[in-house]
Amino acid sequence: MNEFEIIERFFKDAHPTSKGDLALGIGDDAAIINVPDDSELVMSMDTLVAGVHFFENAPSEDIAFKSLSVNLSDIAAMGASPRWISLSLTLPDKDLGWIEKFASSFNTLAAENALVLIGGDLTKGPLSITVQIHGINPKGKSLIRSGANPGDAIYVTGKLGAAAYAFKSIEDSQLYPAATKEEIQRLHRPEARMKTGTTLRNIATSCIDISDGLLADLGHILKASKVGADIKLATIPYSDSLEKLDKDKAIEMALTGGDDYELCFTLPSGIPDAVLNELESICPIYCIGTITNQLSELSLFDENDELYRIKANAYRHFS
Amino acid sequence: MNEFEIIERFFKDAHPTSKGDLALGIGDDAAIINVPDDSELVMSMDTLVAGVHFFENAPSEDIAFKSLSVNLSDIAAMGASPRWISLSLTLPDKDLGWIEKFASSFNTLAAENALVLIGGDLTKGPLSITVQIHGINPKGKSLIRSGANPGDAIYVTGKLGAAAYAFKSIEDSQLYPAATKEEIQRLHRPEARMKTGTTLRNIATSCIDISDGLLADLGHILKASKVGADIKLATIPYSDSLEKLDKDKAIEMALTGGDDYELCFTLPSGIPDAVLNELESICPIYCIGTITNQLSELSLFDENDELYRIKANAYRHFS
Repeated sequence: MNEFEIIERFFKDAHPTSKGDLALGIGDDAAIINVPDDSELVMSMDTLVAGVHFFENAPSEDIAFKSLSVNLSDIAAMGASPRWISLSLTLPDKDLGWIEKFASSFNTLAAENALVLIGGDLTKGPLSITVQIHGINPKGKSLIRSGANPGDAIYVTGKLGAAAYAFKSIEDSQLYPAATKEEIQRLHRPEARMKTGTTLRNIATSCIDISDGLLADLGHILKASKVGADIKLATIPYSDSLEKLDKDKAIEMALTGGDDYELCFTLPSGIPDAVLNELESICPIYCIGTITNQLSELSLFDENDELYRIKANAYRHFS
Repeated sequence: MNEFEIIERFFKDAHPTSKGDLALGIGDDAAIINVPDDSELVMSMDTLVAGVHFFENAPSEDIAFKSLSVNLSDIAAMGASPRWISLSLTLPDKDLGWIEKFASSFNTLAAENALVLIGGDLTKGPLSITVQIHGINPKGKSLIRSGANPGDAIYVTGKLGAAAYAFKSIEDSQLYPAATKEEIQRLHRPEARMKTGTTLRNIATSCIDISDGLLADLGHILKASKVGADIKLATIPYSDSLEKLDKDKAIEMALTGGDDYELCFTLPSGIPDAVLNELESICPIYCIGTITNQLSELSLFDENDELYRIKANAYRHFS
């Protein structure tokens, strides 16, 4: 099977090539879309490389899930609704069994998110996957990083350090025993917080997804918003296995572990309880601190309200 | 320098993060765009892998040029105007000199085409580049593959087989001596036919860019348009060095050689001479045959009007 036959067999049939505002999908030099007049287009691109972002021998279903999910997470962080995707798949060989399982997982997660695959590329080379995702928002309603104000409360979804612990437990199961099922799931098949994202659209003042660790990602909000943050360590939702670790180690993992794909967002004061309850009914959310007017300064406080220093650097794919 | 510092230093400053219909560029979870109400969005994605699409040790200026140019070529084939791009750059190491030259070449070609870089990714791994390009066209005006009609004339721009000859001459300079400067340029820094593309917008019935070889790409038009084609070999514009080859070899190279990034398009009868002259003033165009009603049948005729058989398969990156 050549490139075109593989695309036709495993991908094209699972996606409409013309439907509503999609004028032309897979199969021409480019796809054609009519973005609704009242909407702005929200776009993000992420690449996952074998041996860097996932284990080379991981099941292709998991690789497909994660490739799409990390992109969905960016759309969630904008408060947007996902619509169209392009997929560039670079494969060392034409293992049709591998491709079939990849495509099935990819197509299923796409369908669950009303996403249509509109094009991309299939090339030979070291295993890597690039996805460009396109979502829409009512004009001017996207959640960005620069809207946080002093006094806003800082929240995160879910529990932190889950993926980092699962990763460590694969590397060294003596030091990091028995990651929970949820932690392993968070590493291999992280579920993006889509519904929380769209619910935050008219409420939050800023939002980001935690891909590089809370400190690094909250740091982006602080820099973009020209504000600071005070974080109370006692309020951080630590992933279950972190309770077994030395306290400093647990704090480091929860605050700098990458790959969580939870959301970090800021809410102004006066949000009605009903709204907070609605958010909590979607997924657990935790208030972990407050935005300050200390430009880009992020301060951590321990249970005695003493300043806590962390030495670790945030996780960086390219360091 | 980490990922963010590299992006900031080499890419971000060369591109506005807010301008006109670009509401938000590089630096958030996603970019935000307001597509003009009267326009449709045209999108394409291409990946170039070291050792597959370019030589691993090629100058990074050339790699950058080609990565962007092959994507521009898809936009040209749609008759569209390029607007926004995402770039995912996967690099084995942080060679800042390499990155600086790559960025400079990429940013220059982008600026020449009024393209703004709006985001992407920078990851560690085997060298490869994925670009997603976004263009716009007046609604309903994009050139697609499915509009060719029996009786239409088939045209190509430029000369065919140039990149294929240059590639062969690098592999085996005995058998394929002295590729011309233009041929080497076509391989390493192919210039996309942007102006021809937008000029064809209201004229051509179908269009495609020749990335996989004329036979394969014209074949896509025939399949999509449910028509056939008669091609006269004597009218094919052979790249200069092909004249030195055995006739059959030259035909094979011109018709199946990939990487030319010329345009192949169809024109209905009755196109005024003034329009043809305008097209010819942009770049050389050649009428090479006629669309027929023989479903997907592509027939080649030699100088005696005898049917000519070609055995070679079109170039496929993934075969």
